[in-house]
Amino acid sequence: MKKIAFIGLGNMGLPMARNLLKAGHELKVFDLVQSAVDELVAEGAKAANDAHDAVSGVEIVVSMLPASRHVEGLYLGDDGLLAFIRAGTLVLECSTIAPDSARKVHAQAKALGIDLLDAPVSGGTAGAAGGTLTFMVGGDGNTLEKARPVLAAMGKNIFHAGPEGAGQVAKVCNNQVLAVQMIATAEAMALGVANGLDPSALAEIMRQSSGGNWVLERYNPWPGVMAAAPASNGYQGGFMAELMAKDLGLAQEAAQLTQNSTPMGALALQLYKMLLKQGKGRQDFSVVQQLFIEPEA
Amino acid sequence: MKKIAFIGLGNMGLPMARNLLKAGHELKVFDLVQSAVDELVAEGAKAANDAHDAVSGVEIVVSMLPASRHVEGLYLGDDGLLAFIRAGTLVLECSTIAPDSARKVHAQAKALGIDLLDAPVSGGTAGAAGGTLTFMVGGDGNTLEKARPVLAAMGKNIFHAGPEGAGQVAKVCNNQVLAVQMIATAEAMALGVANGLDPSALAEIMRQSSGGNWVLERYNPWPGVMAAAPASNGYQGGFMAELMAKDLGLAQEAAQLTQNSTPMGALALQLYKMLLKQGKGRQDFSVVQQLFIEPEA
Amino acid sequence: MKKIAFIGLGNMGLPMARNLLKAGHELKVFDLVQSAVDELVAEGAKAANDAHDAVSGVEIVVSMLPASRHVEGLYLGDDGLLAFIRAGTLVLECSTIAPDSARKVHAQAKALGIDLLDAPVSGGTAGAAGGTLTFMVGGDGNTLEKARPVLAAMGKNIFHAGPEGAGQVAKVCNNQVLAVQMIATAEAMALGVANGLDPSALAEIMRQSSGGNWVLERYNPWPGVMAAAPASNGYQGGFMAELMAKDLGLAQEAAQLTQNSTPMGALALQLYKMLLKQGKGRQDFSVVQQLFIEPEA
Amino acid sequence: MKKIAFIGLGNMGLPMARNLLKAGHELKVFDLVQSAVDELVAEGAKAANDAHDAVSGVEIVVSMLPASRHVEGLYLGDDGLLAFIRAGTLVLECSTIAPDSARKVHAQAKALGIDLLDAPVSGGTAGAAGGTLTFMVGGDGNTLEKARPVLAAMGKNIFHAGPEGAGQVAKVCNNQVLAVQMIATAEAMALGVANGLDPSALAEIMRQSSGGNWVLERYNPWPGVMAAAPASNGYQGGFMAELMAKDLGLAQEAAQLTQNSTPMGALALQLYKMLLKQGKGRQDFSVVQQLFIEPEA
Repeated sequence: MKKIAFIGLGNMGLPMARNLLKAGHELKVFDLVQSAVDELVAEGAKAANDAHDAVSGVEIVVSMLPASRHVEGLYLGDDGLLAFIRAGTLVLECSTIAPDSARKVHAQAKALGIDLLDAPVSGGTAGAAGGTLTFMVGGDGNTLEKARPVLAAMGKNIFHAGPEGAGQVAKVCNNQVLAVQMIATAEAMALGVANGLDPSALAEIMRQSSGGNWVLERYNPWPGVMAAAPASNGYQGGFMAELMAKDLGLAQEAAQLTQNSTPMGALALQLYKMLLKQGKGRQDFSVVQQLFIEPEA
Repeated sequence: MKKIAFIGLGNMGLPMARNLLKAGHELKVFDLVQSAVDELVAEGAKAANDAHDAVSGVEIVVSMLPASRHVEGLYLGDDGLLAFIRAGTLVLECSTIAPDSARKVHAQAKALGIDLLDAPVSGGTAGAAGGTLTFMVGGDGNTLEKARPVLAAMGKNIFHAGPEGAGQVAKVCNNQVLAVQMIATAEAMALGVANGLDPSALAEIMRQSSGGNWVLERYNPWPGVMAAAPASNGYQGGFMAELMAKDLGLAQEAAQLTQNSTPMGALALQLYKMLLKQGKGRQDFSVVQQLFIEPEA
Repeated sequence: MKKIAFIGLGNMGLPMARNLLKAGHELKVFDLVQSAVDELVAEGAKAANDAHDAVSGVEIVVSMLPASRHVEGLYLGDDGLLAFIRAGTLVLECSTIAPDSARKVHAQAKALGIDLLDAPVSGGTAGAAGGTLTFMVGGDGNTLEKARPVLAAMGKNIFHAGPEGAGQVAKVCNNQVLAVQMIATAEAMALGVANGLDPSALAEIMRQSSGGNWVLERYNPWPGVMAAAPASNGYQGGFMAELMAKDLGLAQEAAQLTQNSTPMGALALQLYKMLLKQGKGRQDFSVVQQLFIEPEA
Repeated sequence: MKKIAFIGLGNMGLPMARNLLKAGHELKVFDLVQSAVDELVAEGAKAANDAHDAVSGVEIVVSMLPASRHVEGLYLGDDGLLAFIRAGTLVLECSTIAPDSARKVHAQAKALGIDLLDAPVSGGTAGAAGGTLTFMVGGDGNTLEKARPVLAAMGKNIFHAGPEGAGQVAKVCNNQVLAVQMIATAEAMALGVANGLDPSALAEIMRQSSGGNWVLERYNPWPGVMAAAPASNGYQGGFMAELMAKDLGLAQEAAQLTQNSTPMGALALQLYKMLLKQGKGRQDFSVVQQLFIEPEA
């Protein structure tokens, strides 16, 4: 069992940290929200006074923060954590951030002899709670082998995407494809229904045909097709449209650095930003369905 | 065993007719290309002098033609086949055409007591040859039950999409989703590779994650990821870009009639037309990958 | 002065016919809406019983109808007007329809020795009332010279766009550019204002710079920038979004026939169809501004 | 006459500095490219050893650099110019950069009592040479009045766009509209010509109608329509596609910060990045025409 610092106890970080506790690890936790800290302390974690306190004396650091600026702020600079962490420490940076930010943090970690992995996740809060997250990992393969037992306490699928930053790249590529096929599926559902097709029949045909995709398997955006999907529950729960917009923005940021053209991904981002303007950012991302149908009276 | 007229012996029609022959049916065949007719005659079919000759005395008519105008021209009008076919005959119209054209042909068939189904297929020439096509069928459910044994000689999956024209609607919805997710996958592959990821590693991560889709399962557009995919064979074989452009055009035509907004589908069509302008229309539709990478020296 | 039949007395046709009356021509008018007929009769026109009655004995026929199907229905077929009009008659078909429909009507007119022009207009109801329409004319140049005095009674700018159907092509090309630059302007206005710029200042800078366009000159979509623009009057009046959607649809229909790729035009159509789904189809087309801002509380 | 430091003597900066010399100002110039410095020294400027040397003892600093990172690198940080420039100095930052970068530089200048304006230009190398640039200026209005005589030596139109950064915002808004209307015009030209219209006739009709825009006035993308336009000269000269792609990227970066949806602008960027992948980045931005036509044999 390891001594682990866990920084960032939000909707994702809290249940991830809990799974590490359950697996028997010794945790020092930190978050600006005291109630999240208290919750884990009640379950056996130690509270750290601040991020520097959290990392002192641990073998492993895990962080789960909202955005690139938080991660760069936490680790980089004269007062950043990397300047305080001992060489040889293993850092698992699980936030979803710009690949370029991840590479900056990697570069400084490497210079200081710290073993860092970018390891963003997919699977949402349900995956975090159930310990069934997917990790997409960028960095050294040997480091990943060292990290694997710890990651396995939080997730089910652990992919080595490639070198430094590759985890973030794989994440934004995956989520961009997801967003586009969500929208494409929503367009097709609306078109079919407008032409008199039963939504469930159409969904099933496409699912079993060459239009098949993860959205049609698990997450149909048309209300009533899948009882457990957010679409059938007022587009509540699931993965918020504003988070999808964030990930699509990271994809575009990455695409700019390499001058990649991604017309579908770019259009998906614009459509999600339209939804956000309509006040639907905190609904599940399948709410994009509503762009293509008349609002109910 | 049935007496069947088969009209339209192109790349798809010829192997479909052959599978009916193999199943023991008695075939009268017609096509403007004599060599296709001769080929089937050598295998036991009878040659018809023209379409009217083909349908005289049969119980079932199957047609497989290139476009709406051919189908309307064949069946409708004073000299069209419907005016000559006996009431009670079963007509399986397998061409991929505009839903609205299909509905016109249905309407006239219904008025004359002819049992017609629109039954477009997916699965390509390989599916046609192997008898593993997918049929998406529009029309009366009882008529479909009558037709099922004949369709089963040509295909594996037979879906009842809904009422008249619904087969065509399901087909264009499916193919629009397919085109969009092909392009989205191609964008993501190019973005990942430009960021240093191994294409096979990236493809595998997305395939198993929420970006998963039929393209990632069977038909990756990046050369070398799947040995059997057209992308690994110079984008030869498979489903031609110009046929995908045709289907996307049918989807847009349908979307106009119901005033449906389909931004992803519309953009997919424009990107395919760009490819056609570049002279790539007769390559497999995964050649869209090349819009997103630098041409090789 | 000429004997003229005028068929189609809608929002555009009625004031156009009135201007012909004012210019001293002798008019026989027909429309399915009796009140429109009555109005012109009160001003000196003769009422025709039907379209065939309208064209009997006249030298010139003018038609102004909603869509391709109405125009094809009026002129073509055994019972169509072309079969009844005398050779040598001049037909001015002013509806905005698919170029391909215009070409069909031209072909039959030519075969019968009737001098036909496709002459769609721009300028809206204000231009129709004021006699300041722009005519974009397709067909023979000599025929246009014969028609010019009549057209001049209804419009100010008369352009010879080219051969048969070219008037319609020019119209859809123009309106597609207009729609795209309306949306582009709306996007830029919203972006600038979100960044703290005064909308009038931004509008003026772009108007005088390389972003300058007709929308910035006459028709700014941001409320309050131009007092007379529909945007400053609750998006009432002007050119309805659903009519712009119609014209964008005609452009896409034409682009399909020649396999032209028009990504901006296609996207404009989808955005307008989104607006229509939101119930804004009968507001001025500058209401597209609202896709890019938060709705007011 | 003023003592002015001019930093950045590229294609734009060099002729701008020359116009300041001609107007009688005393110039200290700096660039990493010695030949550019030598050229101006031969015309009366003094060479500075480095940027810090350039700004010592001057009343006004003008900078013209390629991108945000150069501007931030020049002015910000412990060793940046702002730390060395005396309070009261007037700084005219003419580079085209991200509005957010401009705001950072403004904030530091303000804290130090330095009068800074963001003053990006349009008008290209011809405008720079002829002293006919357009300046879009962000910052304090009184500062602009102080700067006006200097700006007037380099440009003709001087717009006050608004507060800090507003010059950059106006510039990216304008150039985004420009890019979109360039592409829209190119689409329309290709569609019209494919339908048999004469390109000059079509261009003239749209120019005088509601499709009219700056591109149709000055810069038609169809070869041969305007003899002086880059399109008629092999798409050489003018404003390079890669620079337009840069500006569209800045617009998207700004749009992300305010979560603005700009579907047309986003698509324009993707189409330009496609062109860049095809190796056309150093041709004039009207070369986007070639996306919509078949390449010549």
